[in-house]
Amino acid sequence: MNPSLYRRIDRVIHEKGRMAIMSLLAANSDCSFTEIKAMLGLTDGNLSVHLSHLQKAGYIAISKSFVNRRPQTSCRLTEAGRKAFQEYLGILETIIQASKKTDP
Amino acid sequence: MNPSLYRRIDRVIHEKGRMAIMSLLAANSDCSFTEIKAMLGLTDGNLSVHLSHLQKAGYIAISKSFVNRRPQTSCRLTEAGRKAFQEYLGILETIIQASKKTDP
Repeated sequence: MNPSLYRRIDRVIHEKGRMAIMSLLAANSDCSFTEIKAMLGLTDGNLSVHLSHLQKAGYIAISKSFVNRRPQTSCRLTEAGRKAFQEYLGILETIIQASKKTDP
Repeated sequence: MNPSLYRRIDRVIHEKGRMAIMSLLAANSDCSFTEIKAMLGLTDGNLSVHLSHLQKAGYIAISKSFVNRRPQTSCRLTEAGRKAFQEYLGILETIIQASKKTDP
């Protein structure tokens, strides 16, 4: 096993709620706050905190607009976010393959 | 993407330090505290806290003995730990495969 692989795991993405959000946004180009909340079963508070972390890291872009006169918050992956997520998945994949090989 | 997969991620194993420890112990039947510390570049304090979490979850067994009159702490995976780690890796693998498929 290669310890440096584990050090390269991105803590911002690794938290399982944020991992789910990143995965959802990687599969859907644009999601509203309400959609993400409903899909992942997160509370408003939890989702807000996760989105804030991801935004600060530059991984998602958040925009506010009005749909049928109601405010709507939309989220999408940035290019940096997509790249970081792909890299994160690649590291996990390497770890899994290595773990399978070394299992006694 | 399947949200229930993310909920099934075991938080005890998912922390990256503990993930590295579990991986190390899955590959080596028995490791001393000093070996794990050196391999993973963790501090005494950090490693102790991680081992304590893993022990409380029933995933590792810790034994103390004397080697050349010096106290030595040894760690090994329990059967429950090996099973939980395999299950954890299986969930990650499914998430990765699903993420690859849905990438637009």
